[in-house]
Amino acid sequence: MKPSFITLDGIDGSGKSTHLATIENWFAERNLPVLFTREPGGTPLGESLRSLLLNPATHVGLRSETLLMFAARQQHLDDVILPALAKGIHVVSDRFTDATFAYQGGGRGIPAADIAVLENWVQGSLRPDLTFILDVPLETSFARVSQSREKDRFEQEEAAFFARVRQSYLDRAAADPQRCRVIDSNRDKNQVRAEIENILQQHFKAV
Amino acid sequence: MKPSFITLDGIDGSGKSTHLATIENWFAERNLPVLFTREPGGTPLGESLRSLLLNPATHVGLRSETLLMFAARQQHLDDVILPALAKGIHVVSDRFTDATFAYQGGGRGIPAADIAVLENWVQGSLRPDLTFILDVPLETSFARVSQSREKDRFEQEEAAFFARVRQSYLDRAAADPQRCRVIDSNRDKNQVRAEIENILQQHFKAV
Repeated sequence: MKPSFITLDGIDGSGKSTHLATIENWFAERNLPVLFTREPGGTPLGESLRSLLLNPATHVGLRSETLLMFAARQQHLDDVILPALAKGIHVVSDRFTDATFAYQGGGRGIPAADIAVLENWVQGSLRPDLTFILDVPLETSFARVSQSREKDRFEQEEAAFFARVRQSYLDRAAADPQRCRVIDSNRDKNQVRAEIENILQQHFKAV
Repeated sequence: MKPSFITLDGIDGSGKSTHLATIENWFAERNLPVLFTREPGGTPLGESLRSLLLNPATHVGLRSETLLMFAARQQHLDDVILPALAKGIHVVSDRFTDATFAYQGGGRGIPAADIAVLENWVQGSLRPDLTFILDVPLETSFARVSQSREKDRFEQEEAAFFARVRQSYLDRAAADPQRCRVIDSNRDKNQVRAEIENILQQHFKAV
C-alpha cells in the first residue's frame, strides 16, 4: 500500500484535537504504521519558530512570519514527513499549508499567489493525499476556545479575522474537492467521528 | 539628494570590518545622515535567527536556512532599511542578498534561480544602489580569519566551499557591473581605502 499523507486543518475550536484522536484510533485499530506530527513545529527548528511566533512579545512582520512558517515546513518535510513516507509509513499532520493560506492569506492579507510561490518553492509538486477541513460557525469556535484555555496571539485577533480564515478554508476546499473534505464539526462528536472514519475507509479502499 | 542603499560583501577575511570603518569615516567627514546595519541580524528577529544559524549545534537544513535568511531580510527591510531610506537617510548594510547567492547558492548548492524567487518575493524590485565586493585570494582569507577569532560554523567548511563562494561573488559582480564594484582587498589597506573613497565620491556626484 502506498503510504498516505493526510492533513487536518480548521479554525481554532473546530475540534481538531478531538478528531486527531479519532484518526489515531482508526489507524491503531487497523495496526497501520502511522506518524502523527504538527505544524508549526514537528522538528526542533519548527518548535523554536513556533514559540517565537506564538509569543505576543516578539515583533514579527506578516511577510517574515510567512517565510518562517515555510522555513519550519521545509524542515518538517525534509526531516520528518518525507523520510516517513519513504519508509512506507503514513503521515498525519495537525495543520499544513492550507493553514498558511487561511491565516496569513485570507486572515491577514498575504496574496494567495504569493503563498503559492512559497508552497511550490518548499514542496515542489507534493500535496497531501487527503485533507480534512473541520468547519464550525464562529460562535462555536469562540465558545469552545474561551472555555478551554488561554488565548494565544492568533486567538486574540478579532471576529472578522476568523470569519476570513474560515472562508479561506472553505474556498480552498471548494477549489480542490478531490483532496479536501469539509467536515461539519458543529454536531455531536460521534456523528463527526463516524463521517471521518467513513472517509478514511473510502480513501484506503481506493489507494 | 536621494538616499542611497549601499552594501558591502565578500568572503570572511576580505576586510569588511576594516572598510566598514572606511565608509563610516567617509560619511562622518561629510556629515551625511547614514545608518549602518548588518545581515543576518539587524532586527531582534534577525539577531535571534542569526544566533540560531551560527550555532553548530542547531540542525537547520540548507533550504530552511535560505528561507530563514530571507525572513530575517524581510524584517530588516521593513523595520530598518526602508524606513531609513524613506526619511532620507543613507543605509549601509554589512552583507545583503549577494551573500545568500554566494554562500547558500554557489557555496552550498541552492540553484541561483531558486534564490532569485525569494529575492523577488522579499524585495520586489528593490536592489542596492551600490555594492562593494571585497575580494581576496583564499590564502589571504584563511590567514586573516585564523589569526583573528574563533571559527564559526560557516568558517569550518572547507577550502573548496570558499572557492565557490568567492567565485559566486565575482560572477554576480560581473553580471551587474553598474551596481557591483569588485575591490582587490589583497593590498595595503590604505590603497583599498583610497579606492573605496573614490568610488563613494563618484557615486554621490552622480546621484
